[in-house]
Amino acid sequence: MLIDFWYEFASTYSYPAAMRVERAAAEAGVELRWRPFLLAPIFGGQGWSDSPFNIYPAKGRYMWRDLGRICAAQGLVLKEPVRFPQNGLKAARIALVGADEGWIAPFSRAVYLANFAGQKDISDDAVLAGILTELGLDADAAMARSQTPDNKTRLRAQTDEAIAKGVFGAPSFTVPGAGGDELFWGNDRLEDAIRWARRS
Amino acid sequence: MLIDFWYEFASTYSYPAAMRVERAAAEAGVELRWRPFLLAPIFGGQGWSDSPFNIYPAKGRYMWRDLGRICAAQGLVLKEPVRFPQNGLKAARIALVGADEGWIAPFSRAVYLANFAGQKDISDDAVLAGILTELGLDADAAMARSQTPDNKTRLRAQTDEAIAKGVFGAPSFTVPGAGGDELFWGNDRLEDAIRWARRS
Repeated sequence: MLIDFWYEFASTYSYPAAMRVERAAAEAGVELRWRPFLLAPIFGGQGWSDSPFNIYPAKGRYMWRDLGRICAAQGLVLKEPVRFPQNGLKAARIALVGADEGWIAPFSRAVYLANFAGQKDISDDAVLAGILTELGLDADAAMARSQTPDNKTRLRAQTDEAIAKGVFGAPSFTVPGAGGDELFWGNDRLEDAIRWARRS
Repeated sequence: MLIDFWYEFASTYSYPAAMRVERAAAEAGVELRWRPFLLAPIFGGQGWSDSPFNIYPAKGRYMWRDLGRICAAQGLVLKEPVRFPQNGLKAARIALVGADEGWIAPFSRAVYLANFAGQKDISDDAVLAGILTELGLDADAAMARSQTPDNKTRLRAQTDEAIAKGVFGAPSFTVPGAGGDELFWGNDRLEDAIRWARRS
């Protein structure tokens, strides 16, 4: 019983998903894998050079209102980010280091809080180093490792894997199965994905 | 306690919403208004001359799979429509006549079943007349009334009203309030919209 959680640090609805996914999976007894990836190559393939929430203003206005309702219901602070979308590349590379070293979950949550509650620039090295230090980690070592060619390649490969699984937005959840992965898109689908994993 | 249900007969996720909205509203003691409108002018304003589910294939593939899961859970038949999207213009005009005459709900459900379960062409006069006749109505009279200039203008005005309320997709729900309408987008948001109406 396994679920892959595909997320991008710039993604608005990934914020409430990231803040609740670990507890939801644990309560259901489902193993969880944190899978950061990048939306830019996917959106680029759809002809978008910006977030669809910026390209389509009515959709964007609704999204912020809807996200506000969701965060309020979940007890999460939501403040207008310093810019939208932010560049989550460095944070995603660091998260992959955290996947190996066992701190990807708290690091990812801290990055989302910095972006959507703390009004911090998550592409700023000092902000990322601060998050790592707060978690009791060696920030310099983690950031150095995140910038190795191997780790950069790994993030590209993970994005390619997401695309191969049919992922077109974030957050997404995939549940491995005999007939291929079952895809669920959106914070709203977390519970469905967990149910699917439990019956697989 | 009132909820407006904004729907388009071509819209896939409007199908499960239309099939359950009346019962959900009634159980919650919330008044329901059926508000057909057209997506084409809205999508056109976003630069789309086709459904986004056709323009973005990965999103389209996911939508059909996701809709399949939703329909299965709701006990609804889902069969590939004769084309996607279908032209819901005539059906929407007839539905407005039904709003005056008290049969908009069963007519709308029958059109969705014809489109998404019955593999019928819902832009075909014979199909629409058949639906009206099945409901015990005078099909010729209803169709004639639906084609009057006044009724055509009314559908355009209703679409303009949807746009003014921020609607950008279907199904949507709006709840009138002192500070303006609260907008909810998607079949998933029906329960939230009903809760909002109950506390307004």
